[in-house]
Amino acid sequence: MRAHGEFERIRAMLAVAAGLGVSDRVLIGPGDDAVVIGPGRDESIVLSTDLSIEGVHFRRDWLTWESIGYRAAAASLSDLAAMAARPVGVLVSLAMPPELETPVYEQITSGVAACLDRAEASLLGGDTARSPGPVVIDVVAVGTSGSAVGRFGAEPGDELWVTGRLGAAAASVRALQSGLEPDPGDRKAFERPEPRWREAMWLAERDVMTAAIDLSDGLAGDAGHLAQASGVRLDIDADRLPLAASLEAWSDSSVALAIATGGGEDYELLFAAPPDALSGVAGDFQQTFGLEVTRVGVACEGTGVTWVDRAGEEVPPPAAAGYDHFTDPA
Amino acid sequence: MRAHGEFERIRAMLAVAAGLGVSDRVLIGPGDDAVVIGPGRDESIVLSTDLSIEGVHFRRDWLTWESIGYRAAAASLSDLAAMAARPVGVLVSLAMPPELETPVYEQITSGVAACLDRAEASLLGGDTARSPGPVVIDVVAVGTSGSAVGRFGAEPGDELWVTGRLGAAAASVRALQSGLEPDPGDRKAFERPEPRWREAMWLAERDVMTAAIDLSDGLAGDAGHLAQASGVRLDIDADRLPLAASLEAWSDSSVALAIATGGGEDYELLFAAPPDALSGVAGDFQQTFGLEVTRVGVACEGTGVTWVDRAGEEVPPPAAAGYDHFTDPA
Repeated sequence: MRAHGEFERIRAMLAVAAGLGVSDRVLIGPGDDAVVIGPGRDESIVLSTDLSIEGVHFRRDWLTWESIGYRAAAASLSDLAAMAARPVGVLVSLAMPPELETPVYEQITSGVAACLDRAEASLLGGDTARSPGPVVIDVVAVGTSGSAVGRFGAEPGDELWVTGRLGAAAASVRALQSGLEPDPGDRKAFERPEPRWREAMWLAERDVMTAAIDLSDGLAGDAGHLAQASGVRLDIDADRLPLAASLEAWSDSSVALAIATGGGEDYELLFAAPPDALSGVAGDFQQTFGLEVTRVGVACEGTGVTWVDRAGEEVPPPAAAGYDHFTDPA
Repeated sequence: MRAHGEFERIRAMLAVAAGLGVSDRVLIGPGDDAVVIGPGRDESIVLSTDLSIEGVHFRRDWLTWESIGYRAAAASLSDLAAMAARPVGVLVSLAMPPELETPVYEQITSGVAACLDRAEASLLGGDTARSPGPVVIDVVAVGTSGSAVGRFGAEPGDELWVTGRLGAAAASVRALQSGLEPDPGDRKAFERPEPRWREAMWLAERDVMTAAIDLSDGLAGDAGHLAQASGVRLDIDADRLPLAASLEAWSDSSVALAIATGGGEDYELLFAAPPDALSGVAGDFQQTFGLEVTRVGVACEGTGVTWVDRAGEEVPPPAAAGYDHFTDPA
């Protein structure tokens, strides 16, 4: 039997859901045993799930509950972006200790809703429960795609590109860890990351994206995942990486690089493009989205990730110690 | 950045996933940023999510880790059953405290896999993380349906039916709470509940199910949800409810009834059928599935749930105190 408070929280969720637009893909919405999605002709359904746990992925003294909800939703929608899928909505499972009452539940949910609203997506359903410990948020993103892009399509000769600039969220975490107030731009990137699904769909529609991954874990690790899934080696030019403005100003550029490549929570995309395919549309992309897109390397025969300098000479990888998830054991 | 152990757990999950059959609906499977499902012609996608939290939904001293995984998956597939949807697979988000190592992760995952195997469904993906407290399992069920059934379709005059017998799981919990060994049949119902999706699809295909809900919270509460969603009153005949064999033997039948209607975790279905529609196929149903289906009441104009006796006279509802979620506050 569910506790009384649980139905109260479910009602609060349904009220938030009612305030968001609903895609005509949603045939049966929140409040039933399950949600029913009717994809359009020739569309597939794209699903991903992303856990956010207090003390592991977030700390309540660093972020408002609303930002915690926003980031949990953004992390999940970013997985859709990496597949070039359009968000339909999310299901949210939320567990909270009993001392946190309905207002906190509403703040988290309204953060989720703020992120969904920007993506024209809906709150489709979910589950709530009491937690004997940390706040736990599991967000399931639901999207549609006419032609999903995986991690596996990069071929030798493809160029590697990244959207935006890297490291602002990680620089923000590093400041908070040291008890400092982050640079305002870095804090915004940390609190309100923008999942790049519009950008990914734009690129996929122009057939200039053969494989993609979102940088949730950081370029250093995620490039390895793309290389492995595609069966290629990725040569990444460390000197070309577009760093967040605050990191560009750092005196020790090797630490700045380590932060930018080790910390992933700005949710930019790394993607492969056929040779010369992107040069013709990169200007258009930047004008459409007000967002940089930068060529950072190339896919080759082989395995793994090799870091090179502008002259093409191999250099050591950025020090992995630059960024640790703030409460992960070493 | 993810902790090293997390990738180990993800690899373990992919190994389990590889051992299960994969529906041809799955276009891109586990290991990418998201899973891609291509529904068949005229099919919808049905999605539900179900949280299981240690100390709230399960206790590790009452069940093996494998049974804990099995039940988490069964609870989620049961939501698909309530929509008359066929399971495609599940996404599993699993958070564990660091002192529980990979073997526990594998035991939980293999319990999930055992449940999926019986449903011919796949492990589609998921997420793992460290938990600073309880074990948390969130299972997202993914199914397909040509004609989903919601909670909202019951009309005045419809008959109310339930599958199977009620209360075995609740009786098992009650025994464990008292430090007793449950009746073997009750323990099996508690450890290995059977989501009734095949039964629901069979009924939906014969157009004899106008609304349905799975009894995850207990008949007393779930009947109210169906009544509310359908805008009808449900009159339930307390004397007709099919109780688990061990509860039939209880000397105090009012306590037995309270346990059977207050505890829901046998995951049977309550559904509405047009007048006289089921009588012609109930024998077939019982022969096909080896499972009883029992008429327990009727839908009327009005709201809420009314309990009646065999003569149709109103009786008090079963005492709600018969079953409490074992760690819920009063």
